[in-house]
Amino acid sequence: MTIHDINDTICAISTPPGIGGIAVIRISGPDAIATADKIWHGRPLAQAPGQTLRYGTVDAPDGTRLDDAVAAIYRAPHSYTGQDTVEISVHGSTYIQHTLLQSLTAAGARLAAPGEYTRRALAAGKLDLPQAEAVADIIAARSRAEHRIAATQMRGGYSARLRTLRDTLIDIASLLELELDFSEEDVQFADRADLLNRATQLRDEITRLEHTFATGNAIRQGIPTAIVGHTNAGKSSLLNALLNDDRAIVSDIHGTTRDIIEDTATIGDYTIRFIDTAGIRDTSDTIEQLGIQRSRRAIGTARILILVLDPTSPTLDTDTIPAGTGATPIDTHLIIAINKTDIAPSSTISDTPHFRHYQRTLQSIYRTVDTIGISAATGQGLDTLREAILRAAGQGLDHSDIIVTNERHRQALADALPPLDAVIAALAPGSPVTGDLIAQDLRTVISTLSTIIGDITTPDLLTTIFSRFCIGK
Amino acid sequence: MTIHDINDTICAISTPPGIGGIAVIRISGPDAIATADKIWHGRPLAQAPGQTLRYGTVDAPDGTRLDDAVAAIYRAPHSYTGQDTVEISVHGSTYIQHTLLQSLTAAGARLAAPGEYTRRALAAGKLDLPQAEAVADIIAARSRAEHRIAATQMRGGYSARLRTLRDTLIDIASLLELELDFSEEDVQFADRADLLNRATQLRDEITRLEHTFATGNAIRQGIPTAIVGHTNAGKSSLLNALLNDDRAIVSDIHGTTRDIIEDTATIGDYTIRFIDTAGIRDTSDTIEQLGIQRSRRAIGTARILILVLDPTSPTLDTDTIPAGTGATPIDTHLIIAINKTDIAPSSTISDTPHFRHYQRTLQSIYRTVDTIGISAATGQGLDTLREAILRAAGQGLDHSDIIVTNERHRQALADALPPLDAVIAALAPGSPVTGDLIAQDLRTVISTLSTIIGDITTPDLLTTIFSRFCIGK
Repeated sequence: MTIHDINDTICAISTPPGIGGIAVIRISGPDAIATADKIWHGRPLAQAPGQTLRYGTVDAPDGTRLDDAVAAIYRAPHSYTGQDTVEISVHGSTYIQHTLLQSLTAAGARLAAPGEYTRRALAAGKLDLPQAEAVADIIAARSRAEHRIAATQMRGGYSARLRTLRDTLIDIASLLELELDFSEEDVQFADRADLLNRATQLRDEITRLEHTFATGNAIRQGIPTAIVGHTNAGKSSLLNALLNDDRAIVSDIHGTTRDIIEDTATIGDYTIRFIDTAGIRDTSDTIEQLGIQRSRRAIGTARILILVLDPTSPTLDTDTIPAGTGATPIDTHLIIAINKTDIAPSSTISDTPHFRHYQRTLQSIYRTVDTIGISAATGQGLDTLREAILRAAGQGLDHSDIIVTNERHRQALADALPPLDAVIAALAPGSPVTGDLIAQDLRTVISTLSTIIGDITTPDLLTTIFSRFCIGK
Repeated sequence: MTIHDINDTICAISTPPGIGGIAVIRISGPDAIATADKIWHGRPLAQAPGQTLRYGTVDAPDGTRLDDAVAAIYRAPHSYTGQDTVEISVHGSTYIQHTLLQSLTAAGARLAAPGEYTRRALAAGKLDLPQAEAVADIIAARSRAEHRIAATQMRGGYSARLRTLRDTLIDIASLLELELDFSEEDVQFADRADLLNRATQLRDEITRLEHTFATGNAIRQGIPTAIVGHTNAGKSSLLNALLNDDRAIVSDIHGTTRDIIEDTATIGDYTIRFIDTAGIRDTSDTIEQLGIQRSRRAIGTARILILVLDPTSPTLDTDTIPAGTGATPIDTHLIIAINKTDIAPSSTISDTPHFRHYQRTLQSIYRTVDTIGISAATGQGLDTLREAILRAAGQGLDHSDIIVTNERHRQALADALPPLDAVIAALAPGSPVTGDLIAQDLRTVISTLSTIIGDITTPDLLTTIFSRFCIGK
């Protein structure tokens, strides 16, 4: 019995870890109902029709009564895994949850590995590989944008699009291979110009999909947003004001590999990942310089830069950015936040000819530039700032469209491009490349795309994919 | 519409907070099924029989599809609350959980208050007050002992016992009141000696129940266990070794009111609450002295004392305890742990005449005394120590018996004793107290016991009781 065996009976807590009103333990496999019946008191589950609920009690491993329970019975193939499944609802104490698992393993069930139910659903053909991967994304989603991308993928729109691409390639390959079969007769079944046109469209589509990864990744990880400015401009106060708002759901990410502390907040439809730049300042300390270099690199990945200016500062150093941040300004949205409007009006800065000139320069560098007066201390202008952040976050995003969020998929798309480019070159008029070589490159592209859809998989690949699932799904 | 209205429709996340494979949102009330149908796509829930499951999808508040879902339909009175109830299972992301709640409130449901489902179950007569209170205890239980007490109470054994006590009192009161009706005729219906006998038995039973609270509270809060000894004896190492063991489930309790940090670990059937005594030493610092006083008082509540001795120490100060701890040794179990057996054999201490004499003295003071050689550093002897802790924790406990764990119940039992004592004194031969005064005292005892069972309640009392529930139960 290996972990990939789909013919044994598995059990796991499917609800979030911890204490709650109720917890659900899921049992799935050919013997799920018989296994549950071993620890069940009440009308036998074996006699229950599918899609019904039964009241009863469940036993502790020593045979004493553990808790009152409700069992939901699903009969194959009408269940998540496609196998017989019982979901037992009990009171959500940690003691009951763990003891019930012990009872079930004593009754012959095995503790499920992460994602094992979904892996069985995949094996049963209930969903394909991108849909299975989307299940983990759905569960991890914190924002509306993140959820929508995962939900689109789970509903199969994503797989359908990739299948269409692949089927077009198979169509082209078939035509070329048909020619090869009749090569003695020098027949050309396929119109080379038409094939070239179709292959070029495919390449553009795959390139476009691969490019959506930057956006998809930003939505999934949180849209990287750096707050920059001089030490006393009020960067930390602004960050705290944005994070501590009731409307923001805040969490801490301790970037252990990079030594940068990041905070994320769900604002509107998006998760915004704020990059701490408080540590950036002139220093002769070597260790601190290393930290600053890391911060600068992190800022270089920001899609949104918030430049905090202080109208009460004697020197208005408008050269703070973009110098040295390493950002690619053309893809970056800049928001100039003139702080401390409770002390001095933002016009102290914004009405100066120097600032207007500076603003025009920035407008030619950044994708968008907004200028907003705020007070991190009183909260004035923060709603406007939040709207500007959301506008910047949402620019160019079409949620209904296919967006690649999975690094495995991005890699496969990238891997498909060189052989596809070779195909396109070979299909060009006057190319000396023979049909069999073109067909070979096409087969490489087809099999690469097939790994995304999951028509070509290996146990190792599946193990990697499902290891990032939670146990119980 | 008040929070105590039981005729509106409530909704809440019933599974533990956080991310998991699935989450369950429970909707209950007269319009539960109609409310769920407003956000449901699939075969209408209104047509589903009770105790069945339906597949479908649920909407976000903007009418877009939120997630795939399974709805469990319970029709009144066959549900936890006794009302129509729908439990919707969705993917367990925080986004989906919160958005689904928003959809349901937009559809007319109200967010449930803590314990509101159980409060409705109480109102519907599905359970009585001690059973309802036990639901919260069941959910909070971390150990087998804690779970069993709560489970016994939830199954109604506890209420049945109190009802029997009260009914006996009502019986006595009825006889006395019958006499009063015929007082002109100087008839004595009740045999005074028999009444006295029954009242005395009742008092003994109520006293015994009240005394179980110390045990019940220790089981629920964790059995207070203090590790004492000189600074270098290895108290902290031992505590860490006991807490960091894989078999122990550790949690932190920051005693904000007492400034003492406590750690609990589930060992075997019990939750053990270790009291930090590391801070106890001679000091002239006033603040520190206050802290030490608090620690000493905490030690005074310990049911188990672990005295750590160091055989390598030049002076073996066997006067460390019980001097000044304030403990009541007769109820306390003492475990002498001779530490550092990896460096020096425990016989270095245990074979000395001085120690044997000391041990005999302690045996006359403490309820039990164990002497064990351990090494906190290597883990040697820790299993034996754990067994000794468990033996001490379980002494005199009969899980199948009724144990009071609820302070409200203990207070009511304590309140019942003075009037019951008055009754007993009045029933004694030659007492000048008249039947009407005895009956009055009996009525006080009866109504006090009735508050435990819940036959006499107030909205305030119920609000207090249910406020300690989790939301969703």
